[in-house]
Amino acid sequence: MNKIDVCLSPELIHLYDVPSRVVVIVDILRATSCMTSGLAHGVEAILPVADLETCRTYKSQGYLIAGERNGEKVEGFDMGNSPFEYMAPTTKGKKVAVTTTNGTQALEKSRGAKEILIGSFLNLSVVAERLVKMKEDVLIVCAGWKGKVNLEDSLFAGALVEKLKGAFASDCDAPLMAQTLYTTVEGNLEGYLRASSHVQRLKRLHIHEDIKYCLTPDLCPVVPVLRGHELVIE
Amino acid sequence: MNKIDVCLSPELIHLYDVPSRVVVIVDILRATSCMTSGLAHGVEAILPVADLETCRTYKSQGYLIAGERNGEKVEGFDMGNSPFEYMAPTTKGKKVAVTTTNGTQALEKSRGAKEILIGSFLNLSVVAERLVKMKEDVLIVCAGWKGKVNLEDSLFAGALVEKLKGAFASDCDAPLMAQTLYTTVEGNLEGYLRASSHVQRLKRLHIHEDIKYCLTPDLCPVVPVLRGHELVIE
Repeated sequence: MNKIDVCLSPELIHLYDVPSRVVVIVDILRATSCMTSGLAHGVEAILPVADLETCRTYKSQGYLIAGERNGEKVEGFDMGNSPFEYMAPTTKGKKVAVTTTNGTQALEKSRGAKEILIGSFLNLSVVAERLVKMKEDVLIVCAGWKGKVNLEDSLFAGALVEKLKGAFASDCDAPLMAQTLYTTVEGNLEGYLRASSHVQRLKRLHIHEDIKYCLTPDLCPVVPVLRGHELVIE
Repeated sequence: MNKIDVCLSPELIHLYDVPSRVVVIVDILRATSCMTSGLAHGVEAILPVADLETCRTYKSQGYLIAGERNGEKVEGFDMGNSPFEYMAPTTKGKKVAVTTTNGTQALEKSRGAKEILIGSFLNLSVVAERLVKMKEDVLIVCAGWKGKVNLEDSLFAGALVEKLKGAFASDCDAPLMAQTLYTTVEGNLEGYLRASSHVQRLKRLHIHEDIKYCLTPDLCPVVPVLRGHELVIE
């Protein structure tokens, strides 16, 4: 039976054998939710980049540029990190270059994996189905918040472990912790998350609708994969 | 209100401002349980050291020496890491030099804290009472397993956060995660832990009695503190 493990923060990734694994990157609020949503709604490709200045340089190459720092849209950028911006008709057929606080960095640190997929509640079931078909060991990499673990990414990790039980064996304690956490609060994810430090921060930015959307399972049944430097659906 | 945070692995400790905090070191299976138990049963002081060879040199200075690697006692040492060895009449009034896989290292990384206390289920309530009296921000540092998070240390962190609710404010998401985990399984800690990777390993070493003991709250109402290089009760 293939194994599944959870890396609760990119700061722990050196403890895992990334090259032997298919990695699922998770940044629920909101990078991987945006990526999933955008590609499901007609964005052609998403290019994650490491910093704002690099991102800015893609504007002249025809990309839309998207960026947030500490949950707020960056001045001069086409988009921030609301998934609703990624669904706008103006994004159809376009490429988007994006940099985010935590998600892009989790992705950078996972390069070298057998395959890199993007996970979010929006594509939970199709990601699980893809992983079952791939028959490889899996590592779920939570983006966290500035290196620390966060609730929403841990909850998604737990949801995916729960979805895959029977098909994968848990490698270590982190998958069990995430799974228990998820099964305990799955009936009231949004209520539970209200207590989280990240959502407390976001609350000040008036994005309840984003949060509600990002916690809804299976609205966007696509699996973004990394091809070269870009995320696409195949 | 003072703050409480949880560092789920020593590999994350650089993300926390250790000098501004009272740190509680946690290594339930079994370093901090042994320390608590030994000092409660008449051990004079416990000297945590970084490695086996350093530990060995204390033998000639009149210390009992205790060490395990991967859950097994080291050859030539007086004690392994069963808490029952620390309660033996032969340890009364003696000093014990100890090195363990994870616990000692968590402690080394926490040096510089305002105060370092040793936490375990065995002294849960008295540690909580001491923290309330100290009126300082608190960081619970879980020893984990070779850098990864583990269930038993996370559960203790959750138990301590739960015990302190109302008196401390959670700083970030890790305390909430640990608290939810603990309150979900507190009625059946031992059964839940049976699924953990660490206990799976320990099962092979026939130490069910150790585990049961280490999960029992408040058997040893003492608070070990670090004074210089040694742990003592005052």
